[in-house]
Amino acid sequence: MEIETLWEEVRELSLGLSGEVERLNSPPTPIQFLRDFVSQNKPCIISNAINHWPALSNWSNDSYLIKSLSSSSSSDPLVSVHLTPNGRADALAPLTKANDSLCFASAHVQHMPFPEALSLISSTGSNFVAYAQQQNDCFRLEYSALSPDCDANIPWASDALGCLPEAVNLWIGNHLSETSFHKDHYENLYAVVTGRKHFLLLPPTDVHRMYIRDYPAAQYLYSQDTKDFTLELDKPLRYVPWCSVNPYPSGKNKVEEMEKFPLFFQGPKPFECTINPGEILYLPSMWFHHVRQSPDDNGRVIAVNYWYDMQFDIKYAYFNFLQSIHYPVLKSTVLKIECEDQLKTNSSEDELCAGVS
Amino acid sequence: MEIETLWEEVRELSLGLSGEVERLNSPPTPIQFLRDFVSQNKPCIISNAINHWPALSNWSNDSYLIKSLSSSSSSDPLVSVHLTPNGRADALAPLTKANDSLCFASAHVQHMPFPEALSLISSTGSNFVAYAQQQNDCFRLEYSALSPDCDANIPWASDALGCLPEAVNLWIGNHLSETSFHKDHYENLYAVVTGRKHFLLLPPTDVHRMYIRDYPAAQYLYSQDTKDFTLELDKPLRYVPWCSVNPYPSGKNKVEEMEKFPLFFQGPKPFECTINPGEILYLPSMWFHHVRQSPDDNGRVIAVNYWYDMQFDIKYAYFNFLQSIHYPVLKSTVLKIECEDQLKTNSSEDELCAGVS
Repeated sequence: MEIETLWEEVRELSLGLSGEVERLNSPPTPIQFLRDFVSQNKPCIISNAINHWPALSNWSNDSYLIKSLSSSSSSDPLVSVHLTPNGRADALAPLTKANDSLCFASAHVQHMPFPEALSLISSTGSNFVAYAQQQNDCFRLEYSALSPDCDANIPWASDALGCLPEAVNLWIGNHLSETSFHKDHYENLYAVVTGRKHFLLLPPTDVHRMYIRDYPAAQYLYSQDTKDFTLELDKPLRYVPWCSVNPYPSGKNKVEEMEKFPLFFQGPKPFECTINPGEILYLPSMWFHHVRQSPDDNGRVIAVNYWYDMQFDIKYAYFNFLQSIHYPVLKSTVLKIECEDQLKTNSSEDELCAGVS
Repeated sequence: MEIETLWEEVRELSLGLSGEVERLNSPPTPIQFLRDFVSQNKPCIISNAINHWPALSNWSNDSYLIKSLSSSSSSDPLVSVHLTPNGRADALAPLTKANDSLCFASAHVQHMPFPEALSLISSTGSNFVAYAQQQNDCFRLEYSALSPDCDANIPWASDALGCLPEAVNLWIGNHLSETSFHKDHYENLYAVVTGRKHFLLLPPTDVHRMYIRDYPAAQYLYSQDTKDFTLELDKPLRYVPWCSVNPYPSGKNKVEEMEKFPLFFQGPKPFECTINPGEILYLPSMWFHHVRQSPDDNGRVIAVNYWYDMQFDIKYAYFNFLQSIHYPVLKSTVLKIECEDQLKTNSSEDELCAGVS
C-alpha cells in the first residue's frame, strides 16, 4: 500500500472528501465532542460557542482594552510582543541576504506596557510586524485583567477531556502575522474574538507531505538604532525539526517550491477553513496547521486558545511509526530489490523485502 | 524505526508494561469509558457490572434454562449448535490425515431443541465437542425467552458509543471449546455469566505477529452413522485470511511452531486475563483475541457478548497501512539496498529507499 493510499483512506473513511471542516451550530455535548471528534482525531468548527463572552463586544474597543490592562491590579503590567521583519515568527528564513540557507527564526521578544504594544501592532507601515502573544499561558499570566471577559476554560471540552486547560494563550495581531505549518502535542480549542483566522489543516497521516527537516535555530534581533533586524544563530548551535513547506510561495519562488515539495503541492488539498468572531476551531492534537488572518475594523485580530493535554495513545504510536518511514520510495530500486529477494531466498511469504508495497 | 519499536511504544505509552488489563471495580461513566478506553483503543475489565442480572443466579440451573427455552413462547424454539471434533471451530486444521496442509475449518452447524443442545454440550466424553453459539445476534433471535435475565444493552456503553448493539450473542460451551486468534470489526462488551473465560489479547499494532495468511475455507461435516467428521473444502474454493499462530502448541509441534512464528513467540507477551462470572471485558475493535474457558460446577461456561459498531476512523486507516507493510525485513538485503541507493542517486534525504528504518 502506498502512503498516498493512506492519505486518501483517512479522507474517505473519516474526514470526508469535500475538504470542508464540519461546522456545528452550537456547542456539542461532552460525549458528542469526545466520540465524534477527539476520539476520531477529527477537527470541527463550533459556531455560537462563546456568545456569552463579554470579550465579543468589549475587545473591539481600544480604550476598553487599554483601560483594563493599564490598571495596577495586575502584578506585572508588561505584555510580551513578538517582533519580526515580515510577520513570520517561528518560521524558516534565509540566514542572511548573502547566505540563503534556511534557519528556524524566532521573533525578537520584547516586554512592554500594553498601550505601547497596541500601538506597535497598529503601525503596519513600519519595518517590523508586532504580534502580542506568548505561548506560555500568557492569557492567565499577562492578561489576567481580561479574565472576566472570557470563560476560564471551555466547559464541554473540559468535561470531555477530563481536565482543565494546561495553558490559555491570547493572540493580538494584525493582517501581516502568519504562522507557518507545524503541529502541537495538545488538543486545541481556538476561539476567535475579533477579526478572522484562516487555517490550512493537514491530518497527521500526511506527515511526509510536510518535509520535516532539521533547521538551525536562530533569533531575530531588532535594533532600535538602525531600525533593522539581524538574525543570529543560537549558541550553542541547535537544530529544530520544522515543516519545510510554505503553502503560499511568492511569485518568483513558486515554481521552484512546487517542484521541491511535490507531495504537498500535488497531493490532496489541505482542509481550509475560516474561523469567524464567536467561533471555536477544535484543532486536534498532531494536526499540521498554517494560519493567516484578516483584521477587524480596527485592523486587529484577537483570539484566545485553550491547550488541553493530549492522550499519548495508540494513535500517537502509529504516528511515530509512520513518520519513521522514509518516503517517497525510489520505485525502480524497490522493484529491483523485490526481484533479488525472491531469487536469493526463494523466500517464504514472511520474508519479503520491507517497503511500502 | 523497527516495527518492534512500535509494539513496545504502544505498551509503554498506553497499555502499560505489566501485561495486565486494567480492572475497574464498578461500571465507568459513559465519558470515562469513552475517554479512557474506547478512544484510546484500550481494553479493560469491569467487575460488578451485571450484579443486577437475574441470569447470574438463574443460568447455573439447568432446569431453569430448559424450562425457559422449551416454552412455546419463542417462535422458533430451535437453537444453533456448532459441532467440531476438538472444540476448535473457525480455526486452522489439516485438511485430511494424509494431507496436512491447513485449511480454515468451520463447525458443522446443527439446529435442535435446546434440551438436546444442552445434553450434547454436557457429553464431553463423546467424539465431538458441542458449542451452542451463532454470531448472528442469536441471543435476541434464538434465546429471546431468556431476555428478561439480562440487560438488552450495556447502558454506559450505549451512551458512550451513541448507539445500541448491532448484535447480541449467547455462548454456551464446555471446557473444550476454544476460539483461535482473530479480530472483529466491532467494539465488544463481553459479559461472563457462569464459568470463566481466559483471553489472550494483542493490540492491532502487533498484526505482523499473527502471521495472517490466506487459507482455503472448509466445513466440518458430522455423520450420525459413522460418528465421525470429514472436512470438505468450500465449493467454489474461497480463501479466508486468518491468524496462523496457535499460542498453545501441543508438545510434539511446539518447537516447530515456535520456530515458524518467532515474532509471536519471541515478542512481547500477549495481555492475559480471566473474566469471572459477573464481569465484563471491554475488547476494543481490531484487537486480536484467543479464548479458552473453565467451566462452572455444571461443566459449562455461559456468556453474552454485545457487538457495537466501531468507528472507521484514523486508527483504522493507520492499521490498514501498517498491515500492508511486509515484515520482517531481510536485514542483509535492506542494508545492501540502502548502499546501492546512496551510490546510485547521491540521493537527497527525500529519496532514500523505503523500508522500516
